Amino acid sequence: SVNPDLASERQTASFSVEKLTALLDGGAEQTRIRRAVVEAIESDPVFSRENQYFQTQNERYEAAVRKAVHLQKKMHEMGWTENGPEYKYIYRALSGDVAFLLHRVFMRSISVLGSDKQIAKWIPPATQHQLIGSYAQTELGHGTYLQGLETTAVFDIATQEFILNTPKISAMKWWPGDMGRSATHTVVFAQLYIHGKCYGIHPFIVQIRSLQDHSLCPGVTAGDIGPKMNFEHIDNGYLMLKNVRIPRDNMLSKFCEVRPDGTYVRQGSQKINYFTMTTVRISLISDEVLTPLMKACTIAIRYSAVRRQSKLKPGEQEAKILDYQTQQEKLLPQLAAAYAFHFINDYLQELFDKGYREIQRKNFDMLPELHALSSGFKAVITHHCTAAVEICLRACGGHGYSLLSGLPSLYTKILASCIYEGENTILLLQTARFLIKCFMAASAGQPVPPSVTYLAAVKPGKCPAKNKSDFLSPDIYTEAYQHVAVRLISSTAAKLQDLVQSGVKKYDAWNQCTVQLVLAAKAHCHYITVKNFAETVEKLETKAGIQRIMKHLCDLFALHGIFSNTGAFLHDGYISAAQMDMVTSSYLDLLAVIRKDAVPLVDAFDFTDKSLNSALGSYDGQVYQRLYEWAQKSPTNKMSPAYERYLKPLLHNTLSKL
Amino acid sequence: SVNPDLASERQTASFSVEKLTALLDGGAEQTRIRRAVVEAIESDPVFSRENQYFQTQNERYEAAVRKAVHLQKKMHEMGWTENGPEYKYIYRALSGDVAFLLHRVFMRSISVLGSDKQIAKWIPPATQHQLIGSYAQTELGHGTYLQGLETTAVFDIATQEFILNTPKISAMKWWPGDMGRSATHTVVFAQLYIHGKCYGIHPFIVQIRSLQDHSLCPGVTAGDIGPKMNFEHIDNGYLMLKNVRIPRDNMLSKFCEVRPDGTYVRQGSQKINYFTMTTVRISLISDEVLTPLMKACTIAIRYSAVRRQSKLKPGEQEAKILDYQTQQEKLLPQLAAAYAFHFINDYLQELFDKGYREIQRKNFDMLPELHALSSGFKAVITHHCTAAVEICLRACGGHGYSLLSGLPSLYTKILASCIYEGENTILLLQTARFLIKCFMAASAGQPVPPSVTYLAAVKPGKCPAKNKSDFLSPDIYTEAYQHVAVRLISSTAAKLQDLVQSGVKKYDAWNQCTVQLVLAAKAHCHYITVKNFAETVEKLETKAGIQRIMKHLCDLFALHGIFSNTGAFLHDGYISAAQMDMVTSSYLDLLAVIRKDAVPLVDAFDFTDKSLNSALGSYDGQVYQRLYEWAQKSPTNKMSPAYERYLKPLLHNTLSKL
Repeated sequence: SVNPDLASERQTASFSVEKLTALLDGGAEQTRIRRAVVEAIESDPVFSRENQYFQTQNERYEAAVRKAVHLQKKMHEMGWTENGPEYKYIYRALSGDVAFLLHRVFMRSISVLGSDKQIAKWIPPATQHQLIGSYAQTELGHGTYLQGLETTAVFDIATQEFILNTPKISAMKWWPGDMGRSATHTVVFAQLYIHGKCYGIHPFIVQIRSLQDHSLCPGVTAGDIGPKMNFEHIDNGYLMLKNVRIPRDNMLSKFCEVRPDGTYVRQGSQKINYFTMTTVRISLISDEVLTPLMKACTIAIRYSAVRRQSKLKPGEQEAKILDYQTQQEKLLPQLAAAYAFHFINDYLQELFDKGYREIQRKNFDMLPELHALSSGFKAVITHHCTAAVEICLRACGGHGYSLLSGLPSLYTKILASCIYEGENTILLLQTARFLIKCFMAASAGQPVPPSVTYLAAVKPGKCPAKNKSDFLSPDIYTEAYQHVAVRLISSTAAKLQDLVQSGVKKYDAWNQCTVQLVLAAKAHCHYITVKNFAETVEKLETKAGIQRIMKHLCDLFALHGIFSNTGAFLHDGYISAAQMDMVTSSYLDLLAVIRKDAVPLVDAFDFTDKSLNSALGSYDGQVYQRLYEWAQKSPTNKMSPAYERYLKPLLHNTLSKL
Repeated sequence: SVNPDLASERQTASFSVEKLTALLDGGAEQTRIRRAVVEAIESDPVFSRENQYFQTQNERYEAAVRKAVHLQKKMHEMGWTENGPEYKYIYRALSGDVAFLLHRVFMRSISVLGSDKQIAKWIPPATQHQLIGSYAQTELGHGTYLQGLETTAVFDIATQEFILNTPKISAMKWWPGDMGRSATHTVVFAQLYIHGKCYGIHPFIVQIRSLQDHSLCPGVTAGDIGPKMNFEHIDNGYLMLKNVRIPRDNMLSKFCEVRPDGTYVRQGSQKINYFTMTTVRISLISDEVLTPLMKACTIAIRYSAVRRQSKLKPGEQEAKILDYQTQQEKLLPQLAAAYAFHFINDYLQELFDKGYREIQRKNFDMLPELHALSSGFKAVITHHCTAAVEICLRACGGHGYSLLSGLPSLYTKILASCIYEGENTILLLQTARFLIKCFMAASAGQPVPPSVTYLAAVKPGKCPAKNKSDFLSPDIYTEAYQHVAVRLISSTAAKLQDLVQSGVKKYDAWNQCTVQLVLAAKAHCHYITVKNFAETVEKLETKAGIQRIMKHLCDLFALHGIFSNTGAFLHDGYISAAQMDMVTSSYLDLLAVIRKDAVPLVDAFDFTDKSLNSALGSYDGQVYQRLYEWAQKSPTNKMSPAYERYLKPLLHNTLSKL
């Protein structure tokens, strides 16, 4: 029985939910395949996440290992393969709650960085899980700056071995997933030394645990780094190496090799390797960032259509909290962002596929642009979506704070995406460096990559909007975003030049501009996101009401960005105060329009109740029953020794006195 | 041995850390008392928080109960009393990690709402913990809007009893602390019915568990609501009542009484009661909001002085991350906010003490202003400090994400302060209602309370700053904040009037303005915070460098607020684009100035290592050693059954093949 407050929201949908789902999936056939995978996974009790919120870190780890092992069997049973159309839906269907993810990274590094001989040796047993791999790069004292890694690998000509060492505590490997308790092998990144000379960072395959009894190998100290905000199911680990010897063949040698006589040979172009690392930042967006945001929106919006609190009109019953303007203003822009980033992700995926094809043809021209885009968008999307999930959580008040709502775990998990695969501030500064370079080139009349050609065509002018409905024109707001991006990039470039010309050292000047460079990089990505959303809407079919509602969301995303950041648009008068009042007015009007379709818009994300795992967000909206049922299962409702030990002695002589 | 990178930061302090600590404590004598309490608590192993990050919810609860019971003994031993000068430091020294906090609320409600006879009956046994009390107001379906509570209390003349019932699931009491497992009694808020007529919400003392064996009383269903983002040590509970009968004397009857014949009598003024509820919002600021922020700043800033990553200048060693402008821009404004809110909290405490004296003299004139201030500042401070703690957490990269950093638990705990004791958006709208009323009164030439007299003196004008150093003048920036507050309040008042005049119903017009009303209320509180900080600095002694560094922090707080919200100041041209560039420049310059004293400024908060409970934030800055030592103690480093169960079968035939 569906909560009538939620049922009524669905009756008035202005568009076909099923058609929108198909659009998001990339076609009805994809929807069918995805649903089949979800059904197969969710009907299997081994993959259940039912008790997840009650489990300890140890229980979570054990469940994740069990699931990983069971998944091999399941895939075989179902006929799913790593290259089949089902594969990409498996991880989503499991909500990422599975072990051995780093095993895949281990295999990929061997495939990309290893010689043909190494691939032939390691990949087949790894594929069959006859060993469990990890990937040991980050150290206690070193993350972002890879050159700073301190682990050493010294070549011993006499034995034809590398001797690996952790010279001090800050050099200890720290964080690698699957390494704390599971892995038998790992790829260790270490400074290569030959005859006392350092050749920089290289990858080495190191066995860390016995294949016989799983005990640590001689010279190896390893374990789990302990509790984290989330990822309880992953055994992120530490690793110390003391004179651990590995054969010469264990240095991954597609690009660099150490010959038996100690000669160091560099061969081939590493560019495709850099490109692979770059694509990881894009590939995580869908599962690790967009899915959590879409889940959070689903939970918060369904709950807001069911929760009634206080009165909007005197004499009426308490109002749905979704009818309050403040609640709409919290949630609906996050919903619009989920769609905006879904479409920019499609755009980026396509661009990177094209880049991959070019690079395979030895054309590396696109690399700098792709690197800048992947860095900037990884940072902007993870940051924006993390903030959005937090807004959803807070918008559900006390019940959002309960783990049973599902929102806390979505938040604590997505938060990590701001840190891993490149810390966001560092990434934005890499994008900014590209933008400054392109701006200088464009100013000098040189050609620049497609995504930044707009820097060459700087128009002064003012925003031409005359009334508030003009701000529902994509041309009007897209140009405003473009104007701001150009202004921030050009003014920071000018500041940089001024500083250098006034005698400040280049690196000091750069540091003194970094706060503004970060803003410029964000503005660039924001502009491209708005532009892409508008162009996507333009191309949609007008049938089934899809284009109309997507246009509203695009407008909302764009106007929300202006409303939340008015200064950037007002600064040089591109948008006047009177026009800004129109923006505000149009923006607030849109909230009321989209509110009508809010529930259908999250229904279109097509999450099952099991995948949401939320007492607030289920399809039927029976929030209070579910909270009560779930709470009763909590281990905190088992008998506690606290009564006998502490409360009974405290209360002992009460009866006589009261 | 102190990390030399941290030691060097302390050698160049521009002010006396000890003097600043005394200023924060309210005098050197207070510092002495506080340190004595901290020393006594931290040297007692029962109060240890050492293993906190490794404990389950059940273990946390049991430890908290044990601590609460032990605390009674400790206070007796130490000669500490509830009225003594030590009392206020106990909770801080325990970091709030103790049970029976709601027992105090139970006692306070009886003291405030109960008759003399009820006080005489219940307070003595409660004081001696012969019963354990809780406070049951919030229901599954009802939080903010108290009139909506559904629990009923029907008066039965025949037996002179009230019959309490939970008519449906949404009426179940939900969240009350200490109620899930500990409490024997609770104050239940319920709709009073006499002869079928509803008299609204009243408080009733209800026994829920046996004093003999702690079993639930007949008709009572109660338990723990399960896992939350934090507060694992508290047994937040649920409670269902089915025909539970309590004697007539159990309705707290200082203000309202039901006579034996069923006559309902209202007596005295409840205003002092409302005032008590209002003061709770102010009283939580210090321990629940400022202390966590100060701890987070201490951890993040000490870590940033020790963590070296990447190079700032070519050829030099890796730089302290605190030397990067972007890192300064993350952390130093949060440090400035901690001081700004510390001083506004002092101001509010004083104002509320004065209010209390006036109210005791039956002068209720200050009530509306105090209510507006407590609502607004509770919302603004909790929101700002929660965001600030999150920034500190993220600024520590991967290590900030480890529970061992202490930052995740600070964040997940402070986050709750945005929700409890009044949801922030609702509170800001209450402040806004007051501001609109005062603005209308001021416009009509009527007198208004002191904190809003500025609304009467609206000066048009422009910001008179001529160069960037002018923005280091408190008059200049305080007036800018005042201007923005007036503009937002007056323009929203005008929008409200326009809507009503155009025929929109008053309540609809209000809802359509709420997004802007929230902004207006925030601007008002922000203005008062800046003004109070500037006035506080003005009055400080110039000795020992304290005034100078506080002036820098005041400037930073003010300019950060403008820099992060430029649109509000640019909108009507009060600050021009050229002036805004000066603000930016002054602001960025200040970061470099305050960076020099950043470590001494957090040292002045005077947290012990035990109270920080952080592997990143200890006084000696030995971050990596501590992370490694702590991780080794994690239960995730105990033998896991996963190997025997899942890994061994998986790896079984590896040896033969590899």
